[in-house]
Formats: sequence, structure tokens, C-alpha cells
Amino acid sequence: MSGGPFYDRVALIGLGLIASSMFWAIRRAGLAGEVTGFARSAATRETARRIGLCDRVCDSAAEAVDGADLVVLAVPVGAMGDMAAAIAPALKPGATLSDVGSVKRHVIDAVAPHLPEGVHFVPGHPLAGTEHSGPESGFAELFDNRWCLLVPVDGTPPEPVARLRAFWEGMGAHVEEMEADHHDLVLAVTSHAPHLIAYTMVGVADDLRRVTDSEVIKYSAAGFRDFTRIAASDPTMWRDVFLTNKDATLEILGRFTEELFALQRAIRTGDGELLFDYFTHTRAIRRGIIEAGQDTDAPDFGRAKVTR
Amino acid sequence: MSGGPFYDRVALIGLGLIASSMFWAIRRAGLAGEVTGFARSAATRETARRIGLCDRVCDSAAEAVDGADLVVLAVPVGAMGDMAAAIAPALKPGATLSDVGSVKRHVIDAVAPHLPEGVHFVPGHPLAGTEHSGPESGFAELFDNRWCLLVPVDGTPPEPVARLRAFWEGMGAHVEEMEADHHDLVLAVTSHAPHLIAYTMVGVADDLRRVTDSEVIKYSAAGFRDFTRIAASDPTMWRDVFLTNKDATLEILGRFTEELFALQRAIRTGDGELLFDYFTHTRAIRRGIIEAGQDTDAPDFGRAKVTR
Repeated sequence: MSGGPFYDRVALIGLGLIASSMFWAIRRAGLAGEVTGFARSAATRETARRIGLCDRVCDSAAEAVDGADLVVLAVPVGAMGDMAAAIAPALKPGATLSDVGSVKRHVIDAVAPHLPEGVHFVPGHPLAGTEHSGPESGFAELFDNRWCLLVPVDGTPPEPVARLRAFWEGMGAHVEEMEADHHDLVLAVTSHAPHLIAYTMVGVADDLRRVTDSEVIKYSAAGFRDFTRIAASDPTMWRDVFLTNKDATLEILGRFTEELFALQRAIRTGDGELLFDYFTHTRAIRRGIIEAGQDTDAPDFGRAKVTR
Repeated sequence: MSGGPFYDRVALIGLGLIASSMFWAIRRAGLAGEVTGFARSAATRETARRIGLCDRVCDSAAEAVDGADLVVLAVPVGAMGDMAAAIAPALKPGATLSDVGSVKRHVIDAVAPHLPEGVHFVPGHPLAGTEHSGPESGFAELFDNRWCLLVPVDGTPPEPVARLRAFWEGMGAHVEEMEADHHDLVLAVTSHAPHLIAYTMVGVADDLRRVTDSEVIKYSAAGFRDFTRIAASDPTMWRDVFLTNKDATLEILGRFTEELFALQRAIRTGDGELLFDYFTHTRAIRRGIIEAGQDTDAPDFGRAKVTR
């Protein structure tokens, strides 16, 4: 199933970083006939119309999904259930409903009850993002060489899953399937816990009385800068992620605290050997990531400008 | 004091990332007559000779510093004292001795007792680095638009400080002076604590039984990747940093843990408002860093290749 278009009409519900990048990626490769869009905020819809985001921006979600072969929910995880309820009556029989939420068990539990007969629900999660948000933050290359995880629910026939896979591949992503609970644990490790930790460290730096904000900002290149980038991500999205992937996130944070205490103890007691061995081991993990092609080895520390 | 050369002869003691970058930056701008180099390991000296790092690579530190107007100690913080003791008898009267260590109080305490009469000790710390190390990791642009902090000790006359400042500016850096203890606290916030936290998170991910290493590596783009880059930094250097900036690092980690517990509690109790407000606040700090020119706003998440 290569080439496309894969759907006559795609509806993007929510027009933030992910949906706007999807639109430009769909356009780049000609993956769909018409793309409609809806955002709850009138200002966002206005911006979308101004910059040509979507072929048609609709003033209601029901209007946007009317006749669509693929509907993608690209709203914060906490808003998925209500949005599914709002569009359910307007969904076309045989349509595929998907989403791009960072948490999968909660989205399945929130969306599935609203699904009308004959609509195929194929949850998804593209592992791509920047610290920017909103309709103007998207760009066609966001998904290039990134993973998109599909989390099909029991009983979904293979055809809609295969079609959605080909659609994401057309947007540049590599696609894998994963079970919902395992997805949520893997993401707690690779994304959710690191985000909370980065938010925390940036908060601590800001709160410290004896080091001024301007010093923190000025001297951020020494390691802290990568944390601030992560901690600049969309607040609504991340609030919902933590509240809806609570158990896995708290489990990983518990493990993290345990380990941090062990390293703090090594510092306090002057156990240089433990520290050296630990740091040598983590360095090897980085090498694995470079070999897996998920980052480059360039010594830029995120400094280089790229073209949009 | 612009243009240079600022020193007839510069000796670089230790030939890792910082010293090798200094050599290429000195060459780029013609900041010194001859540059000599020394590394404890014969293999490193061999590599340096092969790639043309330094005008002359010496087999002893005393030989390298003989006749030098500026000597820069670029060895791990824990090795500074012994190295100072080894070169002290060979230092030329009127020479400037400096270093590039990430901790300043400890280096001053370790080096100052060995200083011969008439040698000016001007400690320094360039806030620049990558996760790479060794003589082949250096590049001339490392210090461009980065900060270099000078931490002069009491009684140092102004001329050697001004000359060293001009020298660092010639290598592309912005220079500021700071008091040693304040330096160590600022760096504990902006660099040392973030590094330990990144090391810890990478260690936790690796140690988790239910998520495979290959999954962690494969899906690292979702936030974790920035941590692994930080956690790939040189183990010897970082062991020494934590052992020699113990008090400030432990203080910041204590504050961090306190704050992390408050956020974990908000997740557990479902306090979305606290989380949202916290994340909104940290986002503003990121904006400050971009405005201060210490990072770009490009949506690349460290992906772009740069040329060496």
C-alpha cells in the first residue's frame, strides 16, 4: 500500500503542533484528497485560515468530520473523551478514528465508549515534537525518521490499521504496533518522567534566592539549557499526560528518586569509584542511541539553526 | 588590548576537549606564538602529534611549561593540585597560570599552595562543552559566543587578568569575573545538578526490567535523548566535579528532591492546576534563554548536523 492518497478526506481535530505538521506532511506527499480542520478556539481557526492550514477550516467539529474517511483527534489527552462524544454522531460508517495522544490506555478508555458501530478506532502516537505549540509551529519534516506507535484495540480488522500505517509512513515516520499498557510504561521512561524532572529542575533554578534568574539564563549552556527546552513544552498537554499516566509516571519517579539518593550518598561519602562506574555505564547508552539513528553525533549541543 | 598575539608561548597541560579546542581557536585568531602541549597518556600525546595538535607536544609537563608566558591546566579537577606541584619549579617568573576546571574553590585551594613567587594565578572556566572528550574532539568554534568566567584570587594585579580576558575574547568567548564560591553555586544549579539528574535518569531507564534497552534507545526522541547526551559526558571529569563541589551540589539536589516530591504529590492527588501553573512558569524561563542568545529557537531538538 504505497503512494496514496490513502484517504479521500481527512479531518484534523485540534490544530496545534502535531496536527499542523500532519497537514504539511500530508500535502508534501499527497496523502489525502481534502483535509478539513477544527480547533476549539476561534483565534486558532482564524490563524489556520490565514496561513492556509487545512483545505477547509470548519467552525464545528461535527462539520469537520462530516464525510471524513480518517478523523484524527489531536487535542490534549484530557479532552479526548469529550471530543469523541461530540463528533460520534457525525462520523461516517466505515471511517477510521485515530488520535495522537501521548497516553494510550486513558484515551482508549475515554474514547471507546462513544464509538458508533462500524467506525474503526486505531489509536496512535507519533514520537515527535518540539517545545513549540500552536497552529504556526508545524512543519512538514517533523515526523521524518521518527517513530509512530499504533495501538490497535481488540477486534479491529487489519485493513484500517494497514492503511493508517501506510499513511504515517507517507508522512516520513517509521511505524510499530504496541500494546496500550506497555506503551504507557515505555513512554513514562523515555518521555514523561524526563519531562517532569526537567520541569522540576528549571523550577528549582528559578526559585533559588542566591542565584539570580539572569545568572541562570546567562550560564544555561552548561547543561541546564537542554532541560529548559524540555520544560518549555505545552503546559496543558503535559498536565494531562501526568494526570492520565499517573501510575507509570509515579513508578518511574519512585525508581528515579531511589537511584538519585544512592548517587547523592556516593557524593557525600566521597565514593568516586561508584560515580565513575555509573557515568561510564550511562555513556554506553548514549552510543546505542546514536547507532540507532535517533540522534546525530555532531558536537553542536542543539546550537545549529535549521531551516523550516 | 585587541588583536594579539597575547602570549609568546602558551602551554596546554592536558589535551582533552577543552585544550584541543583552545589550540584550534588560538590558531584561528593567531593569539599566541608557540603552543606547547602535554598529556599524561602516551597514546594521547601520540594522537596529538598525528593530528597536528599543538606546535610541540612534550613528554613531560615541566618541559611543556618551560619558558611559557601562559600555562593552562586542562586536567580533571581532582588532578589539578598534583599537576600544579609537578610544574611549579619549571614555571617562568612573571608567567600566568590558569585552568579550565568546572569547580573553582577546590582548584584554588589545591593549586595556590604550590605557586612560586612572581607567578600570577588566574583561575578560569569556559562554559562550553560537548559530550565528547579526548584530543580529537576539539574544534575552533567551541567557545564562540559562550561565557568564560574568570575567578581572580586576592592580590592578583590587573594586567595578567586583562590579558587573559583578551585572550579568551580572541577565542570567541564573552568573559565575566566572578567570586569562587558564587561560581560554584551558580554552576551547581546550571550544570552540576542537571548532569547528576541526567545520569540518574539514564541509569534508571537502563535498569528497568520491563522496558528493554532497545526500546529505551529506539524511542528516546521523546525527551530522554537530551538526557542521554548530557549523561554521555566524560566520567572522570564529572566524578571529580561532584566530589569537589560536594556542598553546593548536595544543596541543590536537596531542593530538587523537595520540589519533585511536591509535583509527584500533585500528580497523585490530581492537582492539575498546580501542574499547569508550574509548567507555564518554567516555559517563560526558556524564553529568557532564547532572548539571551544562549540557544536558538529552531525546532530541531538537536537534530541538525553541523560541520566541524
